[in-house]
Amino acid sequence: MIKLYFATGTCALASHIALEEAGAEYSTVRINFATHEQRSPEYLAINPKGRVPSLVTDKGILTETPAMLAYIAQSHPKAKLAPPDDPFRFAEIQAFNSYLCSTVHVAHAHRPRGNRWADDPAAIEAMKKKVPETMAACFELIESKMMKGPWVMGDSYTICDPYLFTIAQWLEGDSVDPARFPKVHDHRNRMAERPAVRKVLAAEKG
Amino acid sequence: MIKLYFATGTCALASHIALEEAGAEYSTVRINFATHEQRSPEYLAINPKGRVPSLVTDKGILTETPAMLAYIAQSHPKAKLAPPDDPFRFAEIQAFNSYLCSTVHVAHAHRPRGNRWADDPAAIEAMKKKVPETMAACFELIESKMMKGPWVMGDSYTICDPYLFTIAQWLEGDSVDPARFPKVHDHRNRMAERPAVRKVLAAEKG
Repeated sequence: MIKLYFATGTCALASHIALEEAGAEYSTVRINFATHEQRSPEYLAINPKGRVPSLVTDKGILTETPAMLAYIAQSHPKAKLAPPDDPFRFAEIQAFNSYLCSTVHVAHAHRPRGNRWADDPAAIEAMKKKVPETMAACFELIESKMMKGPWVMGDSYTICDPYLFTIAQWLEGDSVDPARFPKVHDHRNRMAERPAVRKVLAAEKG
Repeated sequence: MIKLYFATGTCALASHIALEEAGAEYSTVRINFATHEQRSPEYLAINPKGRVPSLVTDKGILTETPAMLAYIAQSHPKAKLAPPDDPFRFAEIQAFNSYLCSTVHVAHAHRPRGNRWADDPAAIEAMKKKVPETMAACFELIESKMMKGPWVMGDSYTICDPYLFTIAQWLEGDSVDPARFPKVHDHRNRMAERPAVRKVLAAEKG
């Protein structure tokens, strides 16, 4: 059985929702960031990066959200969370998710995690200050150029949708008004109504 | 025919090498960063992110290195650059490449591109200062925990190899001695001897 290591408020939510949507048999393990459990020897043995999420499968351990989402979709083909046997459509999904992980998540991370990239407290403050601008620029691009609608990839719900939903949850905390992006805002509201999403959000609240 | 938009010294090199290794029919278009051609209306029509690489295919345009590499591998199965029909092995490849794009490339980018994440010149200097430490930490993890050897995924050469090679090219510029990481260093040397890599490096030099 698949085991997902997660922490509340992190990008692990995307994989958690995808597991639920896929109808996967899975269990979850909550990692406590307050006690730095992600840096404990036990957890580092699972994920030497000391981050969440991690996905323990019967074939081995996976990390990195775009890879985990691709695995969940491809190992549960009946749920149709990614197009089978179409390298181009699959690559479009990977491109969207790669943008979320390497640009949007990174833009956000400069608010809570600036110490990854500078030691000087003033520099960390300067990074925080720019996050509303960089996050808004990312979502402007998603809204105007990337999201096909009604779902990210058009008519089909895919592994892009829980990932966009997850990162869009961070907008208010990053001082960006989600109402500036009507398509993304509507997507977030529709996602929040899905039974799988409601179930997972309740479970993560604990 | 596939068309790759690239600039010298960028992560586009990974896809360029993969196209060559795949035996793909492709052409290349050089984008001149010195004249900010990546921000020209003509290029923004191809890639609204204003970045390289972009891959123009007969099915549409792809961006983001991990997605492009997956597409090149899956659309040229004879080259065996990714395992066919094995979601777990494929996800392992995507996880490695996702780490390169979202953590290692991002760590590097804080030297030349700090203005993405802060406006204050002192903050941008503080970011530059930490790059040798963050890049070394990334390569320490790759060396000790992620690279199976002799290729990234073990005995098979995959789309992880040109991507690791590409980013490992940046170590000296980031003031990290590649000799600190013997497996990665040996990998870089073996990659540089491959006919496809020699051909692509010569073509990018122009």
